Amino acid sequence: MKAVIEAIHKSKRILITSHENPDGDALGSTLGLGLGLEKLGKEVLFYNRDGVPELLTFLPRSERVAKSLEGAGRFDLAFAVDCTGTNRAGREFEEFVEAGNIDMVVIIDHHQTNSSSADIQLLDPGSSSTGEIVYLLLKTMSVEIDEDIAKNLYTTIVSDTGSFRYSNTSPVTFRDASELVEHGADPAEISEALFESEPLRKLRLMAFVLPTLSVSEGNRVASIVVDRSMFEKAGARREDTEGLINIPRSIKGVEVAVAFREEEGNGSPLWKISFRSKGDVDVARIAERFGGGGHKKAAGCSVAGSLGEVKLRVFEYISEELA
Amino acid sequence: MKAVIEAIHKSKRILITSHENPDGDALGSTLGLGLGLEKLGKEVLFYNRDGVPELLTFLPRSERVAKSLEGAGRFDLAFAVDCTGTNRAGREFEEFVEAGNIDMVVIIDHHQTNSSSADIQLLDPGSSSTGEIVYLLLKTMSVEIDEDIAKNLYTTIVSDTGSFRYSNTSPVTFRDASELVEHGADPAEISEALFESEPLRKLRLMAFVLPTLSVSEGNRVASIVVDRSMFEKAGARREDTEGLINIPRSIKGVEVAVAFREEEGNGSPLWKISFRSKGDVDVARIAERFGGGGHKKAAGCSVAGSLGEVKLRVFEYISEELA
Repeated sequence: MKAVIEAIHKSKRILITSHENPDGDALGSTLGLGLGLEKLGKEVLFYNRDGVPELLTFLPRSERVAKSLEGAGRFDLAFAVDCTGTNRAGREFEEFVEAGNIDMVVIIDHHQTNSSSADIQLLDPGSSSTGEIVYLLLKTMSVEIDEDIAKNLYTTIVSDTGSFRYSNTSPVTFRDASELVEHGADPAEISEALFESEPLRKLRLMAFVLPTLSVSEGNRVASIVVDRSMFEKAGARREDTEGLINIPRSIKGVEVAVAFREEEGNGSPLWKISFRSKGDVDVARIAERFGGGGHKKAAGCSVAGSLGEVKLRVFEYISEELA
Repeated sequence: MKAVIEAIHKSKRILITSHENPDGDALGSTLGLGLGLEKLGKEVLFYNRDGVPELLTFLPRSERVAKSLEGAGRFDLAFAVDCTGTNRAGREFEEFVEAGNIDMVVIIDHHQTNSSSADIQLLDPGSSSTGEIVYLLLKTMSVEIDEDIAKNLYTTIVSDTGSFRYSNTSPVTFRDASELVEHGADPAEISEALFESEPLRKLRLMAFVLPTLSVSEGNRVASIVVDRSMFEKAGARREDTEGLINIPRSIKGVEVAVAFREEEGNGSPLWKISFRSKGDVDVARIAERFGGGGHKKAAGCSVAGSLGEVKLRVFEYISEELA
């Protein structure tokens, strides 16, 4: 924490980015941190390779997030928030760093498996969201938390705890939420924006996905599949798969929920696999066996191959973990 | 508050009840309050006319809730929690009071419209749940909040705020939640019990229902259909339609969500129709035109006829209300 604060004090131009395909924690942390640093007189550029998905355009000042670093100039400091490594921010950012445009890179993250080569890392796997770490950082620096910052940081918590439902929800999470609501975040407004503002195409996609729901291991494992033909038929986008994992997860008795999502590959099929654990199974262990990572309760990886082959391998590992 | 505390101190045998068809706030408040009073050495009887629904059997000590007052004896004090009036506890309780078995009746409630004839009323419409008022009462009396009490009271909050999503969620709500988690309530465990224990057949039913999703009036109206063939194919029950209205309701821009559910009829088809409003439309007005009723935001009615005819009439009325 101290090293990060020193780095901020020494810097004038600061770039803030997060991971590709950003979620509420990624963008809420990006914006909350940046708006806070602006209160300290810093010049801030917000950047995300994939920009802001439609669902998150309600985040205050999200219109400021740039999708390109072209002509961005030089920075004293860059933050990669909610990133297990700087590579999670995408190729453009990595090349931008390699080209010497940034003096120092800081990672702020709450993921368990972090193995990065940033100059400074501010990690707390005990935090429900990266936004909680950002909040603590801003408070430590005595930054005034205004309504815009509060809304962005509150969204990170709601987003990453599934509205205070996941096991990462701690007394501190609730205390932070309480304070952020006092600072102007509106729980009903943000919940409606996050949970009751689905694009129609997402529900069309769900209609194709639901029939793929299958259970195994005596209902302890449930999975769904989202392939490219479904995307095309529903007119859906990648971001519309957000939350689909909750379908298998919601079933009584399910300990491990899995979602297989087909990625744009050139030639052979590539599957992005998300895992959620409702019981004692550490799904990060499963994801790591495929070169992925995450938390005990939520993890992911990418595997190439036909769906049949990929499923077979994944379910074999899950079976071992359940045993 | 002071009068209630005095009444408790003067009493030895205390009866605690809540409203018929109890929800998480009703039973969590009943149990949380009673277990707290036992810590003060009181003899407590837990009672609910309808007992404990299966979904809430996870509440600690819920097995102690009696469904009858036969042979219960006399009580110095009775609490009717989460009740707008003592009549909400059911006929048996009212007769028990009228028969002179209880010296004093106290109502604890957070509903806005309270017009009761209890001896003492402890009301706070600013509380998210009755459980929050109970928690404040126990703290004021310096009762030690153990894990069982914490779990019951935490459930009242989650239940009545829709997991911190409704507009009754305040900074105090979050502070109380924080403390109750510190006292041993497990957010993930309770959320899982409340929200992630869907029967598989319900998701099978959803797979049939989702393709029926249709929108009209420029996305302002969305509807789904659940017919009897879907029930049969999914092996679903009537109770499995609970919450399906949230599918059309979740779509961005939708002001009126409608669910058509085919009922068991003899001969001609009968449709149970549910309405939800996200905007300014008063759906009770629409339901009333078919002999139904409800609130501005949630209403329902039953209409006989073919689906095509029924839809035509319903959408005509909705169109008028939207105009």
